[in-house]
Amino acid sequence: MKKIIECVPNFSEGRDLEKIEKIVNPFRGKDGVKLLDYQRDEDHNRLVVTVVGEPEPLKEAVIEAMGVAIREIDMTKHQGQHPRMGAIDVVPFIPIKNVSMTEAIELSKEVAKEAAEKYNLPIFLYEKSATRPERQNLAKIRKGEFEGMEEKLKDPDWKPDFGPDKVHPTAGVTAVGARMPLVAFNVNLSTDNLEIANQIARRVRHISGGLRYCKAIGIELKDRGIVQVSMNMTDYTKTALYRVFELIRIEARRYGVNIVGSEIIGLVPMEALIDTAVYYLGVEDFSMEQILETRIME
Amino acid sequence: MKKIIECVPNFSEGRDLEKIEKIVNPFRGKDGVKLLDYQRDEDHNRLVVTVVGEPEPLKEAVIEAMGVAIREIDMTKHQGQHPRMGAIDVVPFIPIKNVSMTEAIELSKEVAKEAAEKYNLPIFLYEKSATRPERQNLAKIRKGEFEGMEEKLKDPDWKPDFGPDKVHPTAGVTAVGARMPLVAFNVNLSTDNLEIANQIARRVRHISGGLRYCKAIGIELKDRGIVQVSMNMTDYTKTALYRVFELIRIEARRYGVNIVGSEIIGLVPMEALIDTAVYYLGVEDFSMEQILETRIME
Repeated sequence: MKKIIECVPNFSEGRDLEKIEKIVNPFRGKDGVKLLDYQRDEDHNRLVVTVVGEPEPLKEAVIEAMGVAIREIDMTKHQGQHPRMGAIDVVPFIPIKNVSMTEAIELSKEVAKEAAEKYNLPIFLYEKSATRPERQNLAKIRKGEFEGMEEKLKDPDWKPDFGPDKVHPTAGVTAVGARMPLVAFNVNLSTDNLEIANQIARRVRHISGGLRYCKAIGIELKDRGIVQVSMNMTDYTKTALYRVFELIRIEARRYGVNIVGSEIIGLVPMEALIDTAVYYLGVEDFSMEQILETRIME
Repeated sequence: MKKIIECVPNFSEGRDLEKIEKIVNPFRGKDGVKLLDYQRDEDHNRLVVTVVGEPEPLKEAVIEAMGVAIREIDMTKHQGQHPRMGAIDVVPFIPIKNVSMTEAIELSKEVAKEAAEKYNLPIFLYEKSATRPERQNLAKIRKGEFEGMEEKLKDPDWKPDFGPDKVHPTAGVTAVGARMPLVAFNVNLSTDNLEIANQIARRVRHISGGLRYCKAIGIELKDRGIVQVSMNMTDYTKTALYRVFELIRIEARRYGVNIVGSEIIGLVPMEALIDTAVYYLGVEDFSMEQILETRIME
């Protein structure tokens, strides 16, 4: 049974195609590592790589790519709309198959330790790998961004988990950690009233009293003349897609509004949708072992 | 992109464990072939093997197992409740991944041709591989069973597609063909009235005016005091699970009966359930490429 982990490193380079290819290159043509996708955003000036692999080869490829990014990216010259604190801004590891969260956390710590020593780079552990509660949330670690990190690291509360206590002069600071797969799930409503989407978002999202693993905002789809509850589901094994979907339906009724459809953006783990089908069909005693494809994959 | 085909050969031996192991053995420890399951039934005196693999190695393993079955099984001494006509009763090939139905049909014909020549065995092509409409249905080919085959093969209409025009003295006759994956899907009703399950089964199944790829009967679950519409979905890509489920719900209303749950027996292709989830969530523009696991499998 092969162990498969996903890694979605975010690098602070979204414009220079030559540099981007150099950073992505360590993920190509390696046994036990598969590059699934990479997307750059010019406005954000940021590169998001999606790669899966077995723990050891994945770890080595990630550390190698981090080294390339440190050589190629100069944060003192970086500008972009997306908040960022380092050349390698954030490196999340996600358990996918035959791997526990504990193992993903362990791998994230090994990568953080080795990269910090090899590149003299300050690294914070975040999310499930965090060593203190206030370091779980990436936004809190990143607050102040690259330009504010020199000052921030003087505070003993912000001593990095690995590496020096001082910002890397051109590569800044990096966060490494383990998290569950995110599912980007949007539900469209039969109204153009953004306030309704926002009110529903507030009721279903965790921060304002809703479901534990749901982040949500209302957004307008101007070209279609409708609004949408746009969500990040941060642990679909605990907050199921069908549950937030039915909750939105119930809340929408209050306004005489209907759900007109939904969207799943990017990749989604099979189990998130199987779970939904099993709920709506009321399948008794279903096991993921019954999925033919899970039996074929080694 | 590896091509994966499933094969579910049925052998006429469900009692002698030593013989069963010999028949299953060619599917073990071979590159490109994976034995998923094998189940014997003493009353049926029958062995059902589930194996997946790449076309060439799968073909060789199947032909090898057929040879073992011919050596080990003597149909002149075979008794069992399940209808049967040969030592290797039926060999269906099912396209699973990166394989078209056309390719599965081609493979079934190669296996039929080679096995017929090698073992001097009369073979009929059936289902999607059938050379005439009356040979699509296995039950029609098998009618008369082993004991009636000698007489049946004298009729020019029942000249085998491959092999001799005469029954193999101890191995009888075999059917080989390609078909879609079956999904065994049962829907439970809030009543103990079998007639209601039977009436609903008649309305949803193809043969009596229902959905094209649905076979259905009513059965009693005596221990639970309920009844069930028990179905074989013969092409889930054309007759979706949610569609027959909602149709049963609508028909049940007529009797003031509700659906209280469902069952999926054995293996089910991922797509059958993803399709159901996408329907209930109303996901727009969903592609199977968005399933993380499909991207990981080579």
